[in-house]
Amino acid sequence: MARLQLGGEDRLLAWLRRRPGTSLIGDDAAVLPGRGPLAVTVDSQIAGVHFPAALDPAITARRLLAVNLSDLAAIGAAPAYAFLTLAVPADFALRRFFLALLAACRRHGVELAGGDLARSGGAGFAATLTLVGTRRPFSRWLRRAGARPGHALWLGGTVGESAAGRMLLAAGARWQRHGVTLPPSWRVPPTIAAAARRAVRRHLLPRPQLALSAWLARRRAGGAIDVSDGLARDLHRLCRESGAGAAVTAAALPRARGFSRLCERLDLEPVELALAGGEDYVLLFSLPSRVLPPPVFGCRRIGEITAAPGVRLRQGGTALKLPPLGWDHLKS
Amino acid sequence: MARLQLGGEDRLLAWLRRRPGTSLIGDDAAVLPGRGPLAVTVDSQIAGVHFPAALDPAITARRLLAVNLSDLAAIGAAPAYAFLTLAVPADFALRRFFLALLAACRRHGVELAGGDLARSGGAGFAATLTLVGTRRPFSRWLRRAGARPGHALWLGGTVGESAAGRMLLAAGARWQRHGVTLPPSWRVPPTIAAAARRAVRRHLLPRPQLALSAWLARRRAGGAIDVSDGLARDLHRLCRESGAGAAVTAAALPRARGFSRLCERLDLEPVELALAGGEDYVLLFSLPSRVLPPPVFGCRRIGEITAAPGVRLRQGGTALKLPPLGWDHLKS
Repeated sequence: MARLQLGGEDRLLAWLRRRPGTSLIGDDAAVLPGRGPLAVTVDSQIAGVHFPAALDPAITARRLLAVNLSDLAAIGAAPAYAFLTLAVPADFALRRFFLALLAACRRHGVELAGGDLARSGGAGFAATLTLVGTRRPFSRWLRRAGARPGHALWLGGTVGESAAGRMLLAAGARWQRHGVTLPPSWRVPPTIAAAARRAVRRHLLPRPQLALSAWLARRRAGGAIDVSDGLARDLHRLCRESGAGAAVTAAALPRARGFSRLCERLDLEPVELALAGGEDYVLLFSLPSRVLPPPVFGCRRIGEITAAPGVRLRQGGTALKLPPLGWDHLKS
Repeated sequence: MARLQLGGEDRLLAWLRRRPGTSLIGDDAAVLPGRGPLAVTVDSQIAGVHFPAALDPAITARRLLAVNLSDLAAIGAAPAYAFLTLAVPADFALRRFFLALLAACRRHGVELAGGDLARSGGAGFAATLTLVGTRRPFSRWLRRAGARPGHALWLGGTVGESAAGRMLLAAGARWQRHGVTLPPSWRVPPTIAAAARRAVRRHLLPRPQLALSAWLARRRAGGAIDVSDGLARDLHRLCRESGAGAAVTAAALPRARGFSRLCERLDLEPVELALAGGEDYVLLFSLPSRVLPPPVFGCRRIGEITAAPGVRLRQGGTALKLPPLGWDHLKS
């Protein structure tokens, strides 16, 4: 696809404002029409830090929105408005990026309400998305501080797969226009290849759990957080905010199809990846033990909230203290 | 000042949350307590693009807040909440940055409500600030679209000085801990040196016109915008959104003290700098001709809004078409 010569910021803005879902753009700040309470979250994606530098701008755009939506899912908000700042190299395919972003916004009922554009100088692509969400009807916000001793601890989906995908990308896997290609040297049985492609796709295009979030917000769940920096680290955060602890059963951690064999091929320990991999973007939440999430969400009970602080991992008949393993944004 | 070893994101967050004005930090998204309508704006500051790469982190923090506050001033909002994303090199003085940011936030009644941190990889410092403002009591929002033919056109302060400061920085002027030093080779009379130091300071530490903004929002002014990308360019935007035009008198453009002699020394044309320099962060607004801003704000009437579209500049007995000169974020 040809680069669009948008001829400067004003022309880009004029082009953007002709698309649906951008009617709030035009002033120095956007006035949000709603009057109810709002939730706000903000997240960056930097090429070479959060995703491979050569990634298709359309995938970059969808990933940027998805990781932010996952934060709104964690608090139980309905997505409503987005604000984008973009710093891009001179040859960046802006039109491809914006078309993908606007399409993804529409799918989630999000209006692009403002932003700020800059050339990134010598540096590469960096984007920050601010998302504003509204409170869902008949619902409350989900908070990290809501977990109580005796609550069951649940995961909204599998963990570790995204980290495997990240490693495959580092090893040469690529997103092409119509799917994932594995490193040419990588000769594996078709089932492992399929699991590997799913892992790369999962890493690049996480699926924020908004439907589960809506159910939890209405059901008045306990504590909730999205797993972005690693299950262990985010569970520590959930516990710390709630003034409680947790016990997790290693064997209960949900694994994606083919994940164990994929880990074997990658010479990785599946439980370690599940606990510390990060960027899973599934919800980790607690519920009173008599409340069960509807089976359609595919949640898995992985342990329980305890009165004693700290997090313990039950594995092979023993219970070990689980440190806050995972991703530290200031260390990596 | 020694670098603070904050030992990772969670410790930095814990340190931040012990400071005043950060009580909303802690969940994946911040729930804003207010229920009135809100204005949201977002702006980035990238080292080497928006300010010199070696700038004191405390000045960087204050500049980041100031340019965003100017956007809230343009829409007439009262500043309330800030969200920060930060991508920083490993040796960045995070504590110095945050202490300055929190102090500046407190001075403006802003609460730091959330954010996101990352190492910037090989790239330098980049920050994005999202500001949320509330509507002031007995006031309306200011909009770009509010200018009407017959309105007088006003500027809230001088223009061009900031651009002169930017050029001085490019020529070797530096911000030191207690003020501005000019390039050692720069031998000029004390009045010009003083004007040069003021220009550098004005460029690095703009003063958003929030008090004027509050008066305008209450007085129900016409159209308003803040001059960030150059008077000519931002006036074109104001006119375009209002479906009107404007005529500006060059001789009426307010100049900072010593600005003309400084321009002479820099071999720059003062009117050109005033029209196209940018980053002035003063308000450009229209008012019905019988309404005068209180003298305390030091506003200057520079022309009027016309029914005929386009912008004309009256200079030396002639009126020329004024193109949208200024800063294009995607071209520079």
